[in-house]
Amino acid sequence: MHSPAAFPCFAVPPLDRALAAELQAVIDTKTKPPGSLGRLEALALQLGLIQGRVDPAVLHPHVLVCAGDHGAARAGVSAYPQEVTWQMVENFLAGGAAINALAGLAGMRLVVADAGVAHEFGVREGLRDMKVGAGGTANYLDDAAMSEAECALAVARGAQLAREIAAGGCNVLGFGEMGIGNTASASLLTHCITGLPLADCVGRGTGLDDAGLARKQALLAQALAIWPERPAAGAASGEDALRVLARFGGFEIAMLTGAMLAAAEARITLLIDGFIVTSALLVAATVAPSVRDYCVFAHCSNEAGHRRQLDWLGATPLLDLGLRLGEGTGAALALPLLKGACAFVREMASFASAGVSDRA
Amino acid sequence: MHSPAAFPCFAVPPLDRALAAELQAVIDTKTKPPGSLGRLEALALQLGLIQGRVDPAVLHPHVLVCAGDHGAARAGVSAYPQEVTWQMVENFLAGGAAINALAGLAGMRLVVADAGVAHEFGVREGLRDMKVGAGGTANYLDDAAMSEAECALAVARGAQLAREIAAGGCNVLGFGEMGIGNTASASLLTHCITGLPLADCVGRGTGLDDAGLARKQALLAQALAIWPERPAAGAASGEDALRVLARFGGFEIAMLTGAMLAAAEARITLLIDGFIVTSALLVAATVAPSVRDYCVFAHCSNEAGHRRQLDWLGATPLLDLGLRLGEGTGAALALPLLKGACAFVREMASFASAGVSDRA
Repeated sequence: MHSPAAFPCFAVPPLDRALAAELQAVIDTKTKPPGSLGRLEALALQLGLIQGRVDPAVLHPHVLVCAGDHGAARAGVSAYPQEVTWQMVENFLAGGAAINALAGLAGMRLVVADAGVAHEFGVREGLRDMKVGAGGTANYLDDAAMSEAECALAVARGAQLAREIAAGGCNVLGFGEMGIGNTASASLLTHCITGLPLADCVGRGTGLDDAGLARKQALLAQALAIWPERPAAGAASGEDALRVLARFGGFEIAMLTGAMLAAAEARITLLIDGFIVTSALLVAATVAPSVRDYCVFAHCSNEAGHRRQLDWLGATPLLDLGLRLGEGTGAALALPLLKGACAFVREMASFASAGVSDRA
Repeated sequence: MHSPAAFPCFAVPPLDRALAAELQAVIDTKTKPPGSLGRLEALALQLGLIQGRVDPAVLHPHVLVCAGDHGAARAGVSAYPQEVTWQMVENFLAGGAAINALAGLAGMRLVVADAGVAHEFGVREGLRDMKVGAGGTANYLDDAAMSEAECALAVARGAQLAREIAAGGCNVLGFGEMGIGNTASASLLTHCITGLPLADCVGRGTGLDDAGLARKQALLAQALAIWPERPAAGAASGEDALRVLARFGGFEIAMLTGAMLAAAEARITLLIDGFIVTSALLVAATVAPSVRDYCVFAHCSNEAGHRRQLDWLGATPLLDLGLRLGEGTGAALALPLLKGACAFVREMASFASAGVSDRA
């Protein structure tokens, strides 16, 4: 990558805190001991600031699931064969996957985008064809997973999707992914951007055994070794982060990065799912640090490395249920808590309006 | 208390595990890596076993909020004046409390019962008049909070309410409470039943400062000291637990105990809220240990002592959001997770039905 100029530009505004005192006063005069709704109160404050309202609401929530294939998957970094990526996309379209059940329950509209699955779906209802590469990424064990142009295109298409979703009135967007081999990509991105030891960033993905995990770790160390021009781990600039994304990313991860940047630009709340989605956020938040202010962290995944990503971001997730499925399932499960935060602010009486005595 | 015979009898069946293998097979063949839905999978198994179905569902969920006043509240164990109990009941009836907003969001029907609030409400729509004592309990700093007959009546009325709710088709019942001073009661119950040191069972309730907390601890130590006939802490039989309940309990806590026993008898899932509700469960689970099998623990409260109760019960709560409000708010916030557990079992495709390749 010679210049970040090839990439779309994003102008993510810092969170406007002008309403903070007014919002906090609204929260504190509700008929409950101050602070007694715990993290729901901080969440209400954040949603109110993002939306610029003292009566925040969750409107037209969506979950965007980006799917893509990985050249490295054929080298044996996953417990499942590569064809599971397209088979699971078919499952999303048929309504049979976990995210269908959980997004439906949460009242979230599901948008499935093909960022570059190694399969020809044809024109299909419910599937956004945004293929950047028809055969998935190249194998980063040989060379860069994608070219600079491909990476920029994936980012731009993700941004386009997020802007379309925003235009429909959505103000909370969850992110999910599908791509056999993409925990490996996410591990490399996490190592390069955070500087955490590679071993701390590599986990069992869909369920590798000990031997499979050791093999994955060795392959990923090799992927780093054959790229001497890599930025120093943990010292990535925005430009470096995009170089790392092109080298090791998946098309679906790059598309998520673009979608996050455009969603934050549009003052949408970003509902961050698990390990892979958080790796896309690491890129986005390196490119535009203000993105972090728009994020709600849905859950802590059971995939090794997710908690470390969250710690590095200074994030405390809402749920900790040992999930490790991806697809945006954690985001869908957390959405009711965002609705709860809005509901108490919008619907509860104040001490004065209810005629309840405040503390002595 | 001379005999537990004065108390209603409950026959809580042990959880029937006959369907366990079949349910686990259903869960394991869904299109996801095995175990990847984490605690949602264990929850689905538990709900299926309780309901005796391989396709569990959440039907007509309710939250039962019992309210009562405490003689000891006038001795200064709370940061709020006693009249807040009846004022908050009015707030429930007017729809302005946190539980109104959160139960409504979760699709739970709210049932409010007056177990013994020191206020005359008259006949009111939406309020079940189940007063055991019109002025609240007696002050356990002088003598027993209630007589054996009063305690038995509160338990029986709670059971009656739960049976009515069950008859309406409800299969998940959340529990909540309102009663200024009731964390103090719950602390005494917890100490006597679990044997945990009193200091570990006493917290700030609605928000005592350090001096208030020290005063509360001293008063509760005094309440124990003036009852030499108390059972040895941590060695309570069912009969002992009921004696402790009569000595230190609130009418609302005794009513919750009865409601839990009757709900478990009816094979309803008990959705346990915070510190006070869990103290009622400690009594119920000492009287009938099988009750524990029907419990889902909604959250870990910020009230000191709740985590210790949960540890003592071997329970892992679903949420940990620093809530300390009561009213059943944690139960309402956790209900979507129960719905999610049912939804994935009922709606997801299997590997075979979706044509997805299983792991190699």
